[in-house]
Amino acid sequence: MTTFAPYAIQTYERCDVLAHISQDTDCIDRRYLTPEHLQVNRQVALWMQQAGMHTWQDAAANQWGRYASANPDAKTLVIGSHLDTVPNSGKYDGILGVLAPLSLIQYIHDHHIALPFHLELVGFGDEEGTRFGATLLGSCAVAGTWNEKWNTLTDENGVSLTQAFLDAGLDIDAIHSAGRNNKNVDDFFEFHIEQGPVLEEHDLSVGVVNGIAGAKRFAITLKGLAGHAGTVPMPMRQDALAAASEMILVIERLAIEKGIVATVGQLKCLSGAVNVISGATTFSLDIRSIDDTLRDETLSLIMEQLHSIAAKRRIHMDIAATHQALAVKCDDELQRQLLTACEKNKMPPFTLSSGAGHDTMALAKICPVAMLFMRCEKGLSHHPGEAVDVNDIEAALKVMFAFIEDYAE
Amino acid sequence: MTTFAPYAIQTYERCDVLAHISQDTDCIDRRYLTPEHLQVNRQVALWMQQAGMHTWQDAAANQWGRYASANPDAKTLVIGSHLDTVPNSGKYDGILGVLAPLSLIQYIHDHHIALPFHLELVGFGDEEGTRFGATLLGSCAVAGTWNEKWNTLTDENGVSLTQAFLDAGLDIDAIHSAGRNNKNVDDFFEFHIEQGPVLEEHDLSVGVVNGIAGAKRFAITLKGLAGHAGTVPMPMRQDALAAASEMILVIERLAIEKGIVATVGQLKCLSGAVNVISGATTFSLDIRSIDDTLRDETLSLIMEQLHSIAAKRRIHMDIAATHQALAVKCDDELQRQLLTACEKNKMPPFTLSSGAGHDTMALAKICPVAMLFMRCEKGLSHHPGEAVDVNDIEAALKVMFAFIEDYAE
Repeated sequence: MTTFAPYAIQTYERCDVLAHISQDTDCIDRRYLTPEHLQVNRQVALWMQQAGMHTWQDAAANQWGRYASANPDAKTLVIGSHLDTVPNSGKYDGILGVLAPLSLIQYIHDHHIALPFHLELVGFGDEEGTRFGATLLGSCAVAGTWNEKWNTLTDENGVSLTQAFLDAGLDIDAIHSAGRNNKNVDDFFEFHIEQGPVLEEHDLSVGVVNGIAGAKRFAITLKGLAGHAGTVPMPMRQDALAAASEMILVIERLAIEKGIVATVGQLKCLSGAVNVISGATTFSLDIRSIDDTLRDETLSLIMEQLHSIAAKRRIHMDIAATHQALAVKCDDELQRQLLTACEKNKMPPFTLSSGAGHDTMALAKICPVAMLFMRCEKGLSHHPGEAVDVNDIEAALKVMFAFIEDYAE
Repeated sequence: MTTFAPYAIQTYERCDVLAHISQDTDCIDRRYLTPEHLQVNRQVALWMQQAGMHTWQDAAANQWGRYASANPDAKTLVIGSHLDTVPNSGKYDGILGVLAPLSLIQYIHDHHIALPFHLELVGFGDEEGTRFGATLLGSCAVAGTWNEKWNTLTDENGVSLTQAFLDAGLDIDAIHSAGRNNKNVDDFFEFHIEQGPVLEEHDLSVGVVNGIAGAKRFAITLKGLAGHAGTVPMPMRQDALAAASEMILVIERLAIEKGIVATVGQLKCLSGAVNVISGATTFSLDIRSIDDTLRDETLSLIMEQLHSIAAKRRIHMDIAATHQALAVKCDDELQRQLLTACEKNKMPPFTLSSGAGHDTMALAKICPVAMLFMRCEKGLSHHPGEAVDVNDIEAALKVMFAFIEDYAE
C-alpha cells in the first residue's frame, strides 16, 4: 500500500494554515459567519477542488465538496466535521475532521481511485455555538432541524443571527435549502480528536465511537444563613458551602459507582468572606452517559441525596434544569466496519464513547452515523495547547481508507 | 432600685442618632479618621460632659471621658468599645459598648453616686480596620503596641495613615502619647453585642465572656487538571473542586469533634465552567478557639488530612498562613464579679467565649480584662439588620451597675 505519510503531513500543515485565519490576532478564534469563517470556507473549497471535488457553500454557510461516483444512482456517504472554533482554541477540534478526510480524498484522487458511491465532505459553519449561544447551527441546518427561534439570537455585539446571514451575503429565510435527508444521504461519518485521555491511556492512535453521551445540566442554589466565623458554634450553622461540598462528594461517588460522568465545574460563594459563614452558594451539575436510562437513574439517586443533605443541614435548595440532550447511538454496522478497518491495519479494535457533543448528533436525525476518534495529547482541547501526533493522523488515514474501501463493497 | 429603663431607652435612641453620621448616605459606614468619625467623637464628648465627665480626644483620635473619684490615688477602671463601623454596618457593633456605659454613668451622675475609683470611658477610633486594612488601631495606640509600619498603610483612595492623621488635625509622630499602662489603668471592661446566636439560643439577655478565641487563617490553593466534563472518565480526573469539597468536610468534622470553630468562607473555582472539570480552586480557612493548644492540635490533624486528600487525588496543594492572633483569657476575678452581678439581678450566670476579635485583645497587653456580651437578634452583625431589644439593654445596665458597685468594694 502506498504510504499515507505525505497526506498526514499535508493535513497537519493545513491545520496550521487555518489556525492563522482568526478574528483575534492573539489566539485562534473563528466564529460562525465572520469574515474569517467565510475565508476558511474559500480556502477549504480550493483544496477540495484540488482533490477533484465539486464544491459549494450551502445556505447555512457550510462548505461542501463532492467526489462523485460515475453512477448517479450510487449511495452517498457524507463525511464531515466543523470549521468554527471556540475563543482561544486549539488547531484540531473540528478542523482535523475536515482536513484529514480531505487529504484522504486527495490521496484517492491522486491515485485515480474511482468510488462506487458518492463521497461528500462538509465543513460545518457552527458547532461550538460560541457566537450566538446555540450549538450545532450548521449541522442542524443540514439535518433540517433548524429552529426559527434562533433567527433573533444576538452575538456579544448585538448583531442578530438574521443580520449576520445578511452580512455574509446569505438569506436566513432560505435556510431550509441547506437541508438534506435520508433520500440523499445514506450514512454520515465524523472523524474527530478525542478531547479526552482514554486513547492516550491505552496507547492507541484511534478508537471507534459507540455513542455520544446524552447530557443534562442543572444550576443548583443553596441558601443557608451567613454568620460570623468566630461566633456561631458549629452545630448551629447553616453553612451553604459545607452543604455544597457534601453534595459534590455524593455526586462524585454515585457517578463512579454507576460508571457515568458527573461534573461540578462551577461553584460560587455568593457571600464569600474569609470570616463569614457561607450564606448562599450556587453550583452547576453536568451529568452524562451514553445510556439515557442509566444517567437518569443515577440522577434520581443524586437528587434524592441532595434533598436529604439540604434537609439535614437546614439549607434551602433550588434546582433549575438548564440543558438536556439525549444520547445518540452510533450505527452497529458502521461501527463494525470501522473496527474491521482498524484490524486490517493491525491496530487493536477499540471502542469508546464520546462524552462531548458533536455534529454527528444533528446528523443522527436523518441517517445512520459513525465516528472515529484520534488520540490528542493529554486529552487537552478547547485550549491553545491542543496537540496531535502526525503519526496518529497517518494511522487514522489508513483506517479511514480501509473503511471507505469496505464501504464501497 | 431605681429603674434603668429610661437609660436603656436613651442608649437605644443614641445608637439611632450615631447611625445617621455616616460617610455613605445609603448605609452606615464610618471609618477611622474620617470627618464622620470626628463628628461622632464630638457628639459622644458632649454626652460624656452631660454625664459629668471630663473629656478629651487622644493622639489616636480615641474619645475619652473620665468620671473621677474624689481620691486622686484611687484605682482606675476603663470601660470602652469602638465607634467605627464596617461598610453597610448595623447600629450596635461597638457603638452600644460605648453608649450603654455612657448612659450608666449618666445614671450614676443623675443619682449623685460617688465612686471610690476613677471610671473612664473610651470610644476607640478604629477596631474594624476597614479603612487601612489593619485592625485595632485605636486600642493598640492605647495599649502602646502601635506598629510604625502602619504609618504608610493607605486607604482605597491612596491616602496614607500619616496623611489621614494630618487631615484629622493630628500628628502620627505623637501617637505614643495616647499610650496607657498598668500604672494608670487597673482593669479594662468591654460591653458588646454577642454577634452570635448563643445567648438567643439560651434565651438570655447577657453572658460573661471567659476569653477571646485566637484565630489562624490560611489561603489554600489546589491545582488539579482541567478537563472536558464529558470526555475524562471519573477515575482519571484530578478535580480541584472535588478535592476542596472533601477538605471542607474534613475541616468541618474535625472542628465539631474537637469543639472549636473552623470556617471555609471563601472558595473560588479559578477555571470555572459548567462543562469543564475544575483545574484550580482556592479556599480560605479560618480556625479559632479560646484554647490555643487545642486549636493548634486540631489544625495539625486538619493539615494532615488535607495533605492526604491532596496526595490521594493527585492535587498540588499550597497553604499560605495569612493571619494569626493568640487567644486572650478574661480575668478570673473580674469574670466572677460579673457572674455575681448577674445573680444579684436574678439572671442566670452564663459564661461563653468570644469567637470574634475585640478591643479587649489589645488592652489585655496592659491590664486584666473582662467582657460582657448582650444578645442580638439571630446573632446577626456587620449587617444593616443588626437588632437588639431595649429590655436587654436595661438588663445589661443593671448587671454593669452591680458590677461597678462590687468593683467599688
